[in-house]
Amino acid sequence: MNEPAFLRARSAEAKQARQEAILDAARTLGRRNGIREVTLTDIAAAVGMHKSALLRYFETREQIFLELTAEGWREWSAALRGDLGRREQATPAEVAAVFAGTLTARPMFCDLLAQAPLNLERNVSIESVRSFKLATLHEVGLIGAELSRLLRLTEPQILDTIATATGMAGALWQMATPGPRLRELYTSDPRLGHAVVEVEPRLTRVLTALLTGLDAHPATDTQAPSDDRRPPVGRRRG
Amino acid sequence: MNEPAFLRARSAEAKQARQEAILDAARTLGRRNGIREVTLTDIAAAVGMHKSALLRYFETREQIFLELTAEGWREWSAALRGDLGRREQATPAEVAAVFAGTLTARPMFCDLLAQAPLNLERNVSIESVRSFKLATLHEVGLIGAELSRLLRLTEPQILDTIATATGMAGALWQMATPGPRLRELYTSDPRLGHAVVEVEPRLTRVLTALLTGLDAHPATDTQAPSDDRRPPVGRRRG
Repeated sequence: MNEPAFLRARSAEAKQARQEAILDAARTLGRRNGIREVTLTDIAAAVGMHKSALLRYFETREQIFLELTAEGWREWSAALRGDLGRREQATPAEVAAVFAGTLTARPMFCDLLAQAPLNLERNVSIESVRSFKLATLHEVGLIGAELSRLLRLTEPQILDTIATATGMAGALWQMATPGPRLRELYTSDPRLGHAVVEVEPRLTRVLTALLTGLDAHPATDTQAPSDDRRPPVGRRRG
Repeated sequence: MNEPAFLRARSAEAKQARQEAILDAARTLGRRNGIREVTLTDIAAAVGMHKSALLRYFETREQIFLELTAEGWREWSAALRGDLGRREQATPAEVAAVFAGTLTARPMFCDLLAQAPLNLERNVSIESVRSFKLATLHEVGLIGAELSRLLRLTEPQILDTIATATGMAGALWQMATPGPRLRELYTSDPRLGHAVVEVEPRLTRVLTALLTGLDAHPATDTQAPSDDRRPPVGRRRG
């Protein structure tokens, strides 16, 4: 309580160094083995601490990975906005390619994107989820500003686009990374050719179509086309 | 070995009845508590068997749920194709609404769609995954025939559409079902309004834009527009 200021500072510094070391170990293990395989015991062993000591720094294994997910959002968002920000204009296909390229360049982030709502957000305190959600919504706002500038997307369109990009990056990454045993099955059985998923080209195609489709309805995203450039499908094809 | 035919038949029948009872119990528990909460011990208790006896019928907990996922694909595909099959023509928005409506009407299937690549396919034998994959690819083929008839989608476009519909149904369902504690957080903190996900409207909007965008490039799904109805975005907006 009456600890002198310089001691408090040293202990705060030491605490932060410990937290960084724990996050580093979790990041290294997660990249190497995939998030689902990494236990709290593995992380404690890698950082040379006892599990009970580690739990003084983080609530649960899930809080550690939720922290890495927030870090992943900040880092990905900066790279994405760095690329988009250099463009004076961009087509839907170009924006889609930047989303797909920056996401697939970050496989552990894709892994975490799928794990977060399924597993990570469910085994941590309300305050940890609140701070995680506020961090991601902040990045969503920053990315949204670029989407609004380049493609004039509305707010619901921005939220739909970012949800699809991150949701499909997570889902496709999981499908595309079934482990060596299953990958061998998919490639060896000719009937299963369609089970092999290539993340980047598929994500690029899906986001290109999505952004092109949003662009076809520039005023709103739920109403019928507001102009007559595109006649109804049935009629045009009859 | 020399078991008479009628005894063999009776025992095959009894075995099938047991398997059905196990699947019934897993289905009921999964619907009530969410897939992630249901253990093999829970299923065994609900069906009144010892866990070791249950393992004579299924390899693992994951195999039971993978079986229910395959059943979910067949049942959803039949409902989807039943609706689409009654239409002589349909717009992208109409097809999107049928996809979103039939998927969100099946919450346990949405839960399973997200769990399958993350968890279920990873703890079963190669033969179980093979038979699961063949079952889903069969349904993808049947659904594809309707998409080809109504919207003239190409094969890669069909695969992208079904992957997006099922991938996003799984991802959005997980985001929209964070448990009562987190849902209260999202609705009570005004800064977290965007964290609340409404699955059906969002899935409808995303699939409408996707199918509209695919429709804007009817010949291929990766090239630039092949006609001049839509001038480049930058130019039109400059």
